Amino acid sequence: MADAITSRETDYSKWYLDVIRHAKLAEHSPVRGCMIIRPNGYALWENMQAALDKMFKDTGHENAYFPIFIPQSFLAREADHVDGFAKECAVVTHSRLKLDPEKGLIVDPDSKLEENLIVRPTSETIVWDTYSRWIQSWRDLPILINLWNNVVRWEMRTRLFLRTMEFLWQEGHTAHATRKEAVDETIQMIDIYARFAEEFMAVPVIKGIKTASERFAGAVDTYCIEALMQDGKALQAGTSHFLGQNFAKAFNCQFQNKNNEQEYVWATSWGVSTRLIGALIMVHSDDQGLVLPPKLAPTQVVLVPIYRKDEEREQVLNEADKVIGDLKAAGIRAKVDAREGYRPGWKFNEYEVQGVPVRLALGPRDIASGTIELARRDTGTKETVDREGLTALISTTLSDIQQNLFDRALAFREDRTTAVDSYDEFKSVLDGKGGFVLAHWDGSADTETQIKEETKATIRCIPLDAIDADGSGVDLISGKPSAGRVYFARAY
Amino acid sequence: MADAITSRETDYSKWYLDVIRHAKLAEHSPVRGCMIIRPNGYALWENMQAALDKMFKDTGHENAYFPIFIPQSFLAREADHVDGFAKECAVVTHSRLKLDPEKGLIVDPDSKLEENLIVRPTSETIVWDTYSRWIQSWRDLPILINLWNNVVRWEMRTRLFLRTMEFLWQEGHTAHATRKEAVDETIQMIDIYARFAEEFMAVPVIKGIKTASERFAGAVDTYCIEALMQDGKALQAGTSHFLGQNFAKAFNCQFQNKNNEQEYVWATSWGVSTRLIGALIMVHSDDQGLVLPPKLAPTQVVLVPIYRKDEEREQVLNEADKVIGDLKAAGIRAKVDAREGYRPGWKFNEYEVQGVPVRLALGPRDIASGTIELARRDTGTKETVDREGLTALISTTLSDIQQNLFDRALAFREDRTTAVDSYDEFKSVLDGKGGFVLAHWDGSADTETQIKEETKATIRCIPLDAIDADGSGVDLISGKPSAGRVYFARAY
Repeated sequence: MADAITSRETDYSKWYLDVIRHAKLAEHSPVRGCMIIRPNGYALWENMQAALDKMFKDTGHENAYFPIFIPQSFLAREADHVDGFAKECAVVTHSRLKLDPEKGLIVDPDSKLEENLIVRPTSETIVWDTYSRWIQSWRDLPILINLWNNVVRWEMRTRLFLRTMEFLWQEGHTAHATRKEAVDETIQMIDIYARFAEEFMAVPVIKGIKTASERFAGAVDTYCIEALMQDGKALQAGTSHFLGQNFAKAFNCQFQNKNNEQEYVWATSWGVSTRLIGALIMVHSDDQGLVLPPKLAPTQVVLVPIYRKDEEREQVLNEADKVIGDLKAAGIRAKVDAREGYRPGWKFNEYEVQGVPVRLALGPRDIASGTIELARRDTGTKETVDREGLTALISTTLSDIQQNLFDRALAFREDRTTAVDSYDEFKSVLDGKGGFVLAHWDGSADTETQIKEETKATIRCIPLDAIDADGSGVDLISGKPSAGRVYFARAY
Repeated sequence: MADAITSRETDYSKWYLDVIRHAKLAEHSPVRGCMIIRPNGYALWENMQAALDKMFKDTGHENAYFPIFIPQSFLAREADHVDGFAKECAVVTHSRLKLDPEKGLIVDPDSKLEENLIVRPTSETIVWDTYSRWIQSWRDLPILINLWNNVVRWEMRTRLFLRTMEFLWQEGHTAHATRKEAVDETIQMIDIYARFAEEFMAVPVIKGIKTASERFAGAVDTYCIEALMQDGKALQAGTSHFLGQNFAKAFNCQFQNKNNEQEYVWATSWGVSTRLIGALIMVHSDDQGLVLPPKLAPTQVVLVPIYRKDEEREQVLNEADKVIGDLKAAGIRAKVDAREGYRPGWKFNEYEVQGVPVRLALGPRDIASGTIELARRDTGTKETVDREGLTALISTTLSDIQQNLFDRALAFREDRTTAVDSYDEFKSVLDGKGGFVLAHWDGSADTETQIKEETKATIRCIPLDAIDADGSGVDLISGKPSAGRVYFARAY
């Protein structure tokens, strides 16, 4: 790994891939578009899962598992869903291989399936087929289920974490007796995603609703959270869909309501994926490598022992174990790097690249003076501090880092959010500093399409907290009245 | 759910499926052979995962993720592996569907893949292809990686949890610099599986080595744990494989050892799956439904409030919350069932069917007298106990239940383990009480095959703790000398 990380200024895309490679987060696999998530990347995902899973369970959801395969005919049942998901996907057509004397291993033509199976791109269809058997009465509702699994969408242009053929995610699927309950659930889940992004990932997000053209295929309304990357492009970080009765109708899922009438069930679905790791990297990391928010960092504190002679080694490692023992007892994820054959400077660099929030260094002189060196990854600052009170200091430092990362990202986003009132201004901001452009919109697909075609900017969302909605604003293109500003941006 | 659970005596297979259905653990999906794991079943799996994952991490393993797809050609690389895994599998041949005006949704023939992709039946091939890029020197070793994922094997005869087309599991894949290290790892992992089975599942297991015919395709040695079900049939509950250098050779994975020589890397792999849930059910459950060991039970204690009038309700629920609050504070997974519209007797029955280890009942009279009713699922006993000291009593009771389930299962296994010295005796035990039959074996495939064909019993394992290995025993069929008794049984 002698090669350095490309700077963001030189080539943002290459910088992103360099950070992933140097921090050993993931790599491309021999199967085009599929990634291998390495232990450093997977540990991040595990921490994300743990935090999200707790939030889901605290709001009454249970986990379950549905099959990886979906019968081809299921995908055709919900009219809009077909368009969105019955296109580029992995189609299983056979169930057997055989050794051919001449050609080697081949698919056995005799094993052709009666009905093709699709590797799930998302599970609404098989879930609602199942719910139609589970639900008879209002007493069977609500059903609040979440699935942690892998899905496949045959993407042609892939990018590690952000867009891959296979990705890991969670998909929630809930069933309700009333429209209101389902809408409330949809909003509750986008709120949970926003809270997770801001509190754990230290990534500020805009909550909003997608326009019709950006909506999930089969949804009545798609709520989303949108984050801003350091190159000024937006990234959709999570979505929560109010599905109305669309899937219930497609799979004939009715229930007897409290008035003894048959009614179609109301539905939601919501998901976040390993794409969040891509967002995390692109929001916080720098030219030295990964920067991780302490709440998600697999290792929050690493201690590098410094010694020259063998007799120093034992003393230093003993003291290091004490320091780390205290930190662990306080619930901090800390470790000593006692590997031999690597110079301290090499280790410092490795942990910088991997984004460990706090790095300690301890040598014989520190031990003599009752001090230790503490370096922060986010600011790069380094200071010698007293061993006395170290655990409390580190707890505070980790909180500070978490807050600092959020504040920094928020300041960046605020700096790159511009309200404009003319199309010329719109284009000049987009081509200038980029970021979110807040503009009035008349709600028509015409304006949206024209802007997308001319500038590659899309409406990221109609914010839930309406902006300048006093009725005085007019659409940039049509000049027609607007109900408030919407967020435009170029996006991943 | 008016229908009752079939008794074990009436029809053991039907009893097993009835327990799964009544306890809402899983069900068949519209895709033949794939199962839907319902929240009750998945919560069990989550608890199993948590315990195993901790054991893996405590022994230095890290989690990662490898792609779901394996290029068809990879499966052909390791000669023995081909025979085992390049047969019945899900073959992805196309990447697109399209809407045909006449036929509806069809596979797009233009999207035929250049190389077919196989949905992973196990990941050795793609892992070792990757390791061959990760490993150059002894410094890169060992690699200790575990994967939690889903795999697909095109099984024709499926049974929920025990044998399904898709199942959830973990697969460990480790790479080592020496043969000894790899063998030690293989044994360490079978020891961990045995400890998990006995300490968490309360299922006693035999540790042993598979014969050549039962070995994993591509392994030098397969270590296994074998458990005995209540119908006297054995079940393989986990395997750990010493792979030698077979996969390293197939994928040209060499490293420079400390003597600066190029050497092939030594490998292991090991796995347990959702099959363990099947074992858990078949070892402990009874004609009333599921029986769960407290260490894995998603709910360890449930409290059913008893009241007639509204004013009683509030008082009882308040007291119930106090009881449950105390239990939760002590780390016990406890809940109140405050649902209205269900009679207490109906709830008692539901928790009995679902296997909750301890059920409490609390009514106004209990509150007046400072008592509470405590029922044990394992023994069916019911007693009125003092509220004072209840939390401590319940902690002890949960430990007692855990131990009792293990003791009961061990006594059953001991009763159904018979040493025999003639083939007639062998057959009469098998057709009589069944279970494990301990017999001398000369190590030849001939005897093994003959016995399998004539009795359907297989050698479950050659025990790690050798039995009657003094050299005096002779093979049941050939009369040739035996190196010790081996475990025969009919098996799932």
